[in-house]
Amino acid sequence: MGEFELLERIRERLPPAGPRVRIGMGDDAAVTLPGGATATSVDAIVDGVHFRREHSSPAQIGHKALAAALSDLAAMGAEPGEAYTVLGVPPDLGEDACVELFDGIALLAAATGTTLAGGDVTRAPALTVAITVVGHAPDADSLVTRAGARPGDIVVVSGKIGAAGAGLLLLERPELAASLPSDDAEELRRSQLEPQPRLRVGCALALAGATAMIDLSDGLGGDAGHLAAQSKVQLRLSAEALPLAAGVAAVATAAGLEPAQFAVSAGEDYELLATLPPARLQSALDSVAGTGTKLVAVGEVAGGAGVEIRQPDGRLLATTGFDQLR
Amino acid sequence: MGEFELLERIRERLPPAGPRVRIGMGDDAAVTLPGGATATSVDAIVDGVHFRREHSSPAQIGHKALAAALSDLAAMGAEPGEAYTVLGVPPDLGEDACVELFDGIALLAAATGTTLAGGDVTRAPALTVAITVVGHAPDADSLVTRAGARPGDIVVVSGKIGAAGAGLLLLERPELAASLPSDDAEELRRSQLEPQPRLRVGCALALAGATAMIDLSDGLGGDAGHLAAQSKVQLRLSAEALPLAAGVAAVATAAGLEPAQFAVSAGEDYELLATLPPARLQSALDSVAGTGTKLVAVGEVAGGAGVEIRQPDGRLLATTGFDQLR
Repeated sequence: MGEFELLERIRERLPPAGPRVRIGMGDDAAVTLPGGATATSVDAIVDGVHFRREHSSPAQIGHKALAAALSDLAAMGAEPGEAYTVLGVPPDLGEDACVELFDGIALLAAATGTTLAGGDVTRAPALTVAITVVGHAPDADSLVTRAGARPGDIVVVSGKIGAAGAGLLLLERPELAASLPSDDAEELRRSQLEPQPRLRVGCALALAGATAMIDLSDGLGGDAGHLAAQSKVQLRLSAEALPLAAGVAAVATAAGLEPAQFAVSAGEDYELLATLPPARLQSALDSVAGTGTKLVAVGEVAGGAGVEIRQPDGRLLATTGFDQLR
Repeated sequence: MGEFELLERIRERLPPAGPRVRIGMGDDAAVTLPGGATATSVDAIVDGVHFRREHSSPAQIGHKALAAALSDLAAMGAEPGEAYTVLGVPPDLGEDACVELFDGIALLAAATGTTLAGGDVTRAPALTVAITVVGHAPDADSLVTRAGARPGDIVVVSGKIGAAGAGLLLLERPELAASLPSDDAEELRRSQLEPQPRLRVGCALALAGATAMIDLSDGLGGDAGHLAAQSKVQLRLSAEALPLAAGVAAVATAAGLEPAQFAVSAGEDYELLATLPPARLQSALDSVAGTGTKLVAVGEVAGGAGVEIRQPDGRLLATTGFDQLR
């Protein structure tokens, strides 16, 4: 397989370029006319670290790589613009599988209004997908960082969490699926394999006046810790209020684990955690509901540092930061 | 080693951010205020494919990754702006080596006015460095694509070529170094290990009215072929006119190869190939000379397709396109 032939096959299948793109794939560099402010993030996934080829189809791997990258734009409240991909191809991955992987990227790109504007393909010992995404906003102040949370703010979380971690455990230990309805098990596995970046939720939260925001890629414990550290505040969360996905508790019980640990430590839910002044909460709940995703309040911001997650009985839930090199 | 600790150590060592960067490393995404047009390119290098850890120091690997990416901006005539890095760390690469690798990136970034604005670190089976670079220009028309060469244009090449390929052969077969002065051998090896992106040459050529431009990353044969294909012209080059680096001929003779083949097929010289109307040639030669690099005319553009490289006796040099997946 030649790199150039593969890139040509991929180019032919891409959706049309967005309005900011003057030159897409095929020259030394893509040329865009951004205007306003840009948010840029890069995310890499590697076989055996972030996914396993025996669990994921090539299209799912492509989807997940772009979803993880776009999730960072969602966490800024940016509108997705362009994506640039690096594909590291191991010897046993054929050209058709590469094209299928790009189809997974292209489908999510089309659904989110993202233009695949450039890329590189190289040999590699393990399948590797690294994607740089560029998002746009009218100005820098429209984007929400991790650093603006203030004591007294409410902490909110979008969607359902713990699903990706429980889904991963079901993929690794299929026998645990006997403990829950098959629809729930299927949905948990899908959450792990095909996460959805919350781009519309992120924009709605930015417009509603979120003071700080982060996506839940490493686990609620670690990610809330990053936001707390950069905002120089403490986040006090209620374990009972965490919106665990259906089936998470059943998987936890079957595996002898605490249900909230899937949300706190496992990561990859790609939901958003944000902080808001109390006066902005109702309009945030309403406008996020308009995107089809539910927003729930899970705690509050206090002076201090770090993250506390308490059970209803006041017991402190262990908040293992997800701190391994992954 | 923790990803976050490593990123923290790296952040502390970075040069200050450029004027367009509002938020650099450490949030979900970097925030920039681009203005004008941007040129964006991504390039990945993998141990065992583009370099070998036994030949290159970590700093040289970091340097080469950024140099290869910046070379694409040079080929557009863009001013370098921001870089976003993905580092895939194998189990046997320690934290100090990672920091040294980033020092190599940071040194070239500082020398070229590039801000390291974001990155991701992940485990990987082989050392992998993927870098996305963003360059800037006042408007899209200031950037030079591969597609504008016209019959009658002159073809020019910057600097010396064949050095990176000859240097690689010297690294792999050290006994060949006996056939040339040790200074030349050292310089050839350095060309392979520490290529220099021709950013000032690219800007000078763009200002001088280059009609098309590409960097020599895959080898003159393949790269000239890309430019010819996208411009829908033929490039007729003189093998005798190619500016081979000192020592290339000696290495070729010792290895039983044709000297020009190092320039034509081996790649990684990261010099620039451009086309210009004859009336612009003299001002291009003068302004590129002002950057400290020599520009030479190596042929002309004709109607037709593909690339011809002829020996003085009229014999056609085999122009093997560099078409493997690398």
